[in-house]
Amino acid sequence: MAAELTVHQLSDKHRSTLDQALAAIRSRAYWSPHPEHPKAYGETAPADGLAAFEAVRGTRFDLGQPGTDGWTGGEVSPYGPELGVEYPHADPDVLLPAMKAGMGAWRDAGPEARALVCIEILARIGARTHEFAHAVMHTSGQAFMMAFQAGGPHAQDRGLEAVAYAYEEQTRVPGQADWSKPQGKKDPLELGKTFTAVPRGISLMIGCNTFPTWNGYPGLFASLATGNAVLVKPHPRAVLPLALTVKVAREVLAEAGFDPNLVALAVERPGEGIAKALAVRPEIKLIDYTGSTEFGDWLETNARQAQVYTEKAGVNTVVVDSTSNYKGMLSNLAFSLSLYSGQMCTTPQNLLIPRDGIETDAGHKSYDEVVADLAASVGGLLGDDARANALLGALVNPDVKSRLEAAAALGEVALASREVVNPEFPDAVVRTPVMVKLDAAKPDPEAPYLSECFGPVSFAVAVDSTADALELLRRTVREKGAMTVGAYTTSADTERAIEEVCLEESAQLSLNLTGGVYVNQTAAFSDFHGSGGNPAANAALCDGAFVSNRFRMVEIRRQA
Amino acid sequence: MAAELTVHQLSDKHRSTLDQALAAIRSRAYWSPHPEHPKAYGETAPADGLAAFEAVRGTRFDLGQPGTDGWTGGEVSPYGPELGVEYPHADPDVLLPAMKAGMGAWRDAGPEARALVCIEILARIGARTHEFAHAVMHTSGQAFMMAFQAGGPHAQDRGLEAVAYAYEEQTRVPGQADWSKPQGKKDPLELGKTFTAVPRGISLMIGCNTFPTWNGYPGLFASLATGNAVLVKPHPRAVLPLALTVKVAREVLAEAGFDPNLVALAVERPGEGIAKALAVRPEIKLIDYTGSTEFGDWLETNARQAQVYTEKAGVNTVVVDSTSNYKGMLSNLAFSLSLYSGQMCTTPQNLLIPRDGIETDAGHKSYDEVVADLAASVGGLLGDDARANALLGALVNPDVKSRLEAAAALGEVALASREVVNPEFPDAVVRTPVMVKLDAAKPDPEAPYLSECFGPVSFAVAVDSTADALELLRRTVREKGAMTVGAYTTSADTERAIEEVCLEESAQLSLNLTGGVYVNQTAAFSDFHGSGGNPAANAALCDGAFVSNRFRMVEIRRQA
Repeated sequence: MAAELTVHQLSDKHRSTLDQALAAIRSRAYWSPHPEHPKAYGETAPADGLAAFEAVRGTRFDLGQPGTDGWTGGEVSPYGPELGVEYPHADPDVLLPAMKAGMGAWRDAGPEARALVCIEILARIGARTHEFAHAVMHTSGQAFMMAFQAGGPHAQDRGLEAVAYAYEEQTRVPGQADWSKPQGKKDPLELGKTFTAVPRGISLMIGCNTFPTWNGYPGLFASLATGNAVLVKPHPRAVLPLALTVKVAREVLAEAGFDPNLVALAVERPGEGIAKALAVRPEIKLIDYTGSTEFGDWLETNARQAQVYTEKAGVNTVVVDSTSNYKGMLSNLAFSLSLYSGQMCTTPQNLLIPRDGIETDAGHKSYDEVVADLAASVGGLLGDDARANALLGALVNPDVKSRLEAAAALGEVALASREVVNPEFPDAVVRTPVMVKLDAAKPDPEAPYLSECFGPVSFAVAVDSTADALELLRRTVREKGAMTVGAYTTSADTERAIEEVCLEESAQLSLNLTGGVYVNQTAAFSDFHGSGGNPAANAALCDGAFVSNRFRMVEIRRQA
Repeated sequence: MAAELTVHQLSDKHRSTLDQALAAIRSRAYWSPHPEHPKAYGETAPADGLAAFEAVRGTRFDLGQPGTDGWTGGEVSPYGPELGVEYPHADPDVLLPAMKAGMGAWRDAGPEARALVCIEILARIGARTHEFAHAVMHTSGQAFMMAFQAGGPHAQDRGLEAVAYAYEEQTRVPGQADWSKPQGKKDPLELGKTFTAVPRGISLMIGCNTFPTWNGYPGLFASLATGNAVLVKPHPRAVLPLALTVKVAREVLAEAGFDPNLVALAVERPGEGIAKALAVRPEIKLIDYTGSTEFGDWLETNARQAQVYTEKAGVNTVVVDSTSNYKGMLSNLAFSLSLYSGQMCTTPQNLLIPRDGIETDAGHKSYDEVVADLAASVGGLLGDDARANALLGALVNPDVKSRLEAAAALGEVALASREVVNPEFPDAVVRTPVMVKLDAAKPDPEAPYLSECFGPVSFAVAVDSTADALELLRRTVREKGAMTVGAYTTSADTERAIEEVCLEESAQLSLNLTGGVYVNQTAAFSDFHGSGGNPAANAALCDGAFVSNRFRMVEIRRQA
């Protein structure tokens, strides 16, 4: 097939983007090629994106995949509307062999061509960011602006970051090398050597409900850029953003002269649960998963033929010891607790506060004052319904609502959840966060703060001292894992002690955030998402370990 | 503790070695800082090394380790003599906590200091290469020159290679970075970030009988250089080379101001089998293992709390299609089959030869002629007892001898094994290799060429065609794994077809070797040992994947 897109053309378009990404992952300075502001996409982009989203609703989303044996779908937006999109249902016995067919040519194309094709896929997704924003919003329940940014540029950043890591990893050895070993007076021993990055096989990406693109792109692009085919199995409630992604990827692959079946979609019928069956297929050599600890553990235990990368549940903690900016701390925490109704794997859950209170620039604050002030800060932030809707989004599913409702019975409610009406989408379930006072004084293995309560629920846990807070922090990170740890302190010694716990337990720490950066947000190319060293995740986004075992290096040596 | 060895001193001594190693793993050109020739070690080195080896015999090898609850040992040289060395037996409940105590300081020292300390350990081992050669010879049964080179400089090369990979991997992000994100007309968001490589925990290195140092050093140094403590559990028949290694490591660590317990030795009592118990201890987070597929699979299945790196059994094949240097091919293969009595994980086992014969520069050769000529070549190479002893070494254990003896019953013997007397060590069991003719025409799932027969046994397998040879090659690599594949062909098409099988099945290929490089030898810094992509090993020596998951990167970000 004659390629419409040549490597030369793609290099002209994207090589400098790749080089900048490679520089950024080394410097960890701020960088992104994907604009965050909706206005950056052109005057007609908002209307065009909405129209494109509306146009796909109620249609059959045909990808032209081999082995399509029916159609399935049934997404209902957390904002109310049914999406009404039907997706291909795949017979893996037909689809998987078809996905393998193009892998030889994809392998032979080499790391640079693969990276450039991946960047073209990301660029085309980027151009349609408004459309993706609606798709993410109406599957995850994120508010539009968050769906736009986290589901668009930030997800694209994480995808590009994975492409850069994959490219760098595959090019650590040259494609060809001459080897000459001196033999004293005799002629040297001489060999010509070639080194080829070979793929593992088919990579299975199991998407999540809350961040289908942000959590999905790293694994998808890391595997594709290292020569593997990628089968995308979206969460049944969040198919559309990944179906659009697969469609773009297939188009670009075909235009670049590769087999579009290198990327394919597998959507399940209601209750079918195809992830388990797919995950143990011998063709599947890599799995990326974001979701429950239960299923993540199942994958790690059972999908032994594959390399398995999981992000699971965790208990995120903020240690409140002291602050020189009490107001800043309160407003920063209030935002972190509110954003997307706490439905982020990075949202703080346990706020550990000494029962004797803390020192601040506004004087000593008792435990009750800190909790009340934080509750007031959240209340103030979300007091206006329009702003509340813009920050909270909608609850993604009934389980979150149930946990929120049950939380009020766990202790004294410091901040009650309230219902917010979304005038545009009256069926959306919008709730402000609940904050519950708990006490760590009595050891209780069933204490709510010892496990994850995913959703808009936080616990203001009274502790005897900051030292006790650190012991509890250590315990929860070690036993349950944590994607994030936050801390506020003005004491260098305390700071050092908190750092030591995080270094020993392998947790990512944000210290004294009082401005516009939040503990639950990480920036690609600079921040690591998770550490891969505690039970919340066995991999970090993104590092060498995330890409280096997705391919193997085969050497062919010849006598010179 | 005041360090006798400062990082500054170590940098003066070793930084350029590290830099050269870093350059070599990127260029894959020939490089080694460890001389191969025994004479390079000084005039008195041979006598000094032998004296040092003799001096340790019959002694109690005290490492001053915590938790020593007794003494054990019982190594008998494959050459006959009892070594008579007693080693500390460890109580893991005492030793493991003691090993963790120094990890904080070792972590805080950073990647460069750790690399320099590791290189100092290797340098001191290197200075004692003659002593190590005797220790390796009298535990593995390797002949002296091979024990010297493979157990000395080549093992040290592989250790240094792992140190270089570990250093590079940990320094892919800076220790500190400033991050500034523009906010339009508002002030930028600014953070200060630090990145710290943190260890996984205690690393368990389970040594093997045949190459205690060569196969042991990569994992040992990769884990130590990434901040972990390392517990060395040698094969009970090959303790001394690793006990000496541990002793040197402990001395250097102490002199450099670190806790010597970062490296410790665990030797088992006869029949105790401590590897299983140690492997599932919660403190053990990394395991390196070389040995049987059975125990390797057990580790991968059961030591779920650890990252497990295994090198197991495989079936190595040479495809004989055609050659432009018949004599060179025969002599090259004869050497490969003879070296260390075929007791290398890289020794060819299956020689696939078309039953209609092959084209060569010496005319057409029938299958029978090829086999007879190869048998004659082996016979010629080993015809002189002195040379035979120098090449073959001794059989490492009675199992190898049993397999060798049983092999003669598997088919028509093309080359019979003969007993060689070692005049210096009359108790050594020295045998030349056996070659057995087999036929792949009838499918037989129990065919001997479908599984590993470790030792001086090769199968001259008649195949219908080279195409059939490639199918059999593919099957054995896929089902049983392979550390090496060799091939001889003058056809570009056949070469391409063989390459394709190796790329698809992830096997390392050597083509048309007719000179002084052998399929069973790899050079550190340039060649990969294993691919990590077929059942013979889940890791390659050495690549990014071998080191990147031995540590995690913890980020601490602070508002600027």
